[in-house]
Amino acid sequence: MKFLHTSDWHLGRQFHNVSLLEDQRAVLDHLIQYLTENPVHALVVAGDIYDRSVPPTMAIELLDQVVSRICHELDTPVIMIPGNHDGAKRLGFAARQMKGSGLHIISDFDQMLEPVVLRSDEAGEVAFYGMPYNDPELVRYHYQQPVATHDEAHQLLCQRITEQFDASQRHVLISHCFVDGAMESESERPLSIGGSDRVDHQHFLPFDYVALGHLHQPQMKGEEFIRYSGSLMKYSFSEQHQKKGVTLVELNQDGFVSAQHIDLPCPHGMRIVEGELEQLIEQGKTDPNNHDYLLVRLQDKHAILDPMEKLRKVYPNVLHLEKPGMLIGVDQEMGRARLARGEMDMFRDFFLEAKQSPLSSEQEQVMSDVIQSIKQAEQH
Amino acid sequence: MKFLHTSDWHLGRQFHNVSLLEDQRAVLDHLIQYLTENPVHALVVAGDIYDRSVPPTMAIELLDQVVSRICHELDTPVIMIPGNHDGAKRLGFAARQMKGSGLHIISDFDQMLEPVVLRSDEAGEVAFYGMPYNDPELVRYHYQQPVATHDEAHQLLCQRITEQFDASQRHVLISHCFVDGAMESESERPLSIGGSDRVDHQHFLPFDYVALGHLHQPQMKGEEFIRYSGSLMKYSFSEQHQKKGVTLVELNQDGFVSAQHIDLPCPHGMRIVEGELEQLIEQGKTDPNNHDYLLVRLQDKHAILDPMEKLRKVYPNVLHLEKPGMLIGVDQEMGRARLARGEMDMFRDFFLEAKQSPLSSEQEQVMSDVIQSIKQAEQH
Repeated sequence: MKFLHTSDWHLGRQFHNVSLLEDQRAVLDHLIQYLTENPVHALVVAGDIYDRSVPPTMAIELLDQVVSRICHELDTPVIMIPGNHDGAKRLGFAARQMKGSGLHIISDFDQMLEPVVLRSDEAGEVAFYGMPYNDPELVRYHYQQPVATHDEAHQLLCQRITEQFDASQRHVLISHCFVDGAMESESERPLSIGGSDRVDHQHFLPFDYVALGHLHQPQMKGEEFIRYSGSLMKYSFSEQHQKKGVTLVELNQDGFVSAQHIDLPCPHGMRIVEGELEQLIEQGKTDPNNHDYLLVRLQDKHAILDPMEKLRKVYPNVLHLEKPGMLIGVDQEMGRARLARGEMDMFRDFFLEAKQSPLSSEQEQVMSDVIQSIKQAEQH
Repeated sequence: MKFLHTSDWHLGRQFHNVSLLEDQRAVLDHLIQYLTENPVHALVVAGDIYDRSVPPTMAIELLDQVVSRICHELDTPVIMIPGNHDGAKRLGFAARQMKGSGLHIISDFDQMLEPVVLRSDEAGEVAFYGMPYNDPELVRYHYQQPVATHDEAHQLLCQRITEQFDASQRHVLISHCFVDGAMESESERPLSIGGSDRVDHQHFLPFDYVALGHLHQPQMKGEEFIRYSGSLMKYSFSEQHQKKGVTLVELNQDGFVSAQHIDLPCPHGMRIVEGELEQLIEQGKTDPNNHDYLLVRLQDKHAILDPMEKLRKVYPNVLHLEKPGMLIGVDQEMGRARLARGEMDMFRDFFLEAKQSPLSSEQEQVMSDVIQSIKQAEQH
């Protein structure tokens, strides 16, 4: 049996005030194209389908179209759980009514114990258990057990599931959590403040495969068959070097065989570029990926007027500008700049930038008088 | 064939800051009980399922439970359309995935032309067409036709539907609109400002039955088979005398036979009571429905301290107080009262109310001096 493991779609995400919906649509089109050319027995989505519990209507429409195409046109079952970004009840509305169509949204603890059983080959059945994202408080309340941490919650939930294992089946778990020692990137919302969010991978050992969501970097945890697929696409500049796509999982009659990363291209790259303004502008003129979403770190030491506008002429999707070497034009650093440098110094930089020539001594004198008189007025 | 016609559930509605969800749950329990004892071939819900486009999670859970019980446990198909209060795309998520289970949410114009066909008896098939709530702008844009009013929109949509009638079937239309000449109550959100929201009932004549939603009073429009079921329960004090429930519709092989109102009880009545405070308090002590939601119109002519608190001791669910006869304690009328009456008069009322005895002449004098000195201070 083969299935695709994916997670962290974050449909409806805004990134530096740019909607990523059209990028998400394009990547999901590639996913559907892959599924069309390489049929699998199921698509597993391990949480954070949406970016927030009340997603925008456009994100709902996109998910509707995607599952419609996969479930109906490709006749491939889709099994998903809510993540910490999703509203479980909201995502899970009418889940029971959808099951017959092949769309399985597992959003509560009762459904967690009703696996989706698929039979694909001579090797028999595979039971897919979905563990909806849960706070320890929720688990404590539901089971009336002393559960304080995510680790204890997962221990208990895994026990409940494994207790009812059918030995004739192979078992896949879908979960959205932070397995111990895994690498983080900036765009994962913390599950909790402190360290109580970490989950020991040992709980997952009884399964044949564990499809994890939450961390955006594809990776295994402890065993080859305990894996994060990583997010659908890059959701922060700290993810610039991560591979993005889905994981193709293969099981045989004895269980896990292999997990393979499948790249999914995204219309826009996301990366950090560094350099001086003139150099970056030159480089942008011939950069084949000049439409990427960029964080630019300007290394210039002197002040520059409207660097964003200048950069966007060659790199239209500069989303954020850092100017560690500069003291004027750095909005968030204005306060500090004012303390560190005199008004005259700053005006000299500004004038040079605006007029492309330095202040004459006469101009210096006029400006100095103006500054003096303002300061005196402030003191009275 | 028999089916139930209902509309305007407004799940999640707040009324004077009171959540009506538990009342809605109780009424829907009665509906399910009725369906259990009196099986029908379908339940039709003609829009305004929720009270707003982004409903609270609790309302989503309630609807989930209700449709689960009706579709699964009772095996009765549910056919619904969004109303002007609903978010069509949000309500319609994964509608295609639900159809197989008997939950039909018809939320766009394509689905409008794919009737839900039920076959129940020797008389053959009945096709249920759902017309999702639509603005004229939406219809104009979708069909690229000159449509300016709700009437023109419905004319066009009815045409599209009747064009594809299968003559061997009987035809039911579900629509959420304001049919001309119908009675309004306060809790229906206007479809539009002005008169362009009215729809001529003539467009609906080709159908065997038209299940309407939007108006909260059960009523027929023009023909016995063009009907509003009215809202699930009372949603404004102006609806105090309206009957609330669902409509039981019967069709035979020739079409419409009968429509019968079925009462659904609600835990709390909703009504307006008028009288003087003491009289209402006496009456409340023996009122068997003292938990009703009340608008109280106090007829007392003199000022009363904390009338709400006093009333709620016998009528715990007084939601709103009107005091047309009084000048003190009427918050919204305080401004006018101050202009109309002198401070001394008002203080006399207050003192009488607070102390249960009139001011002595000595007290009158002290108070009068205080008021005078304040007034003088204000003038300087």
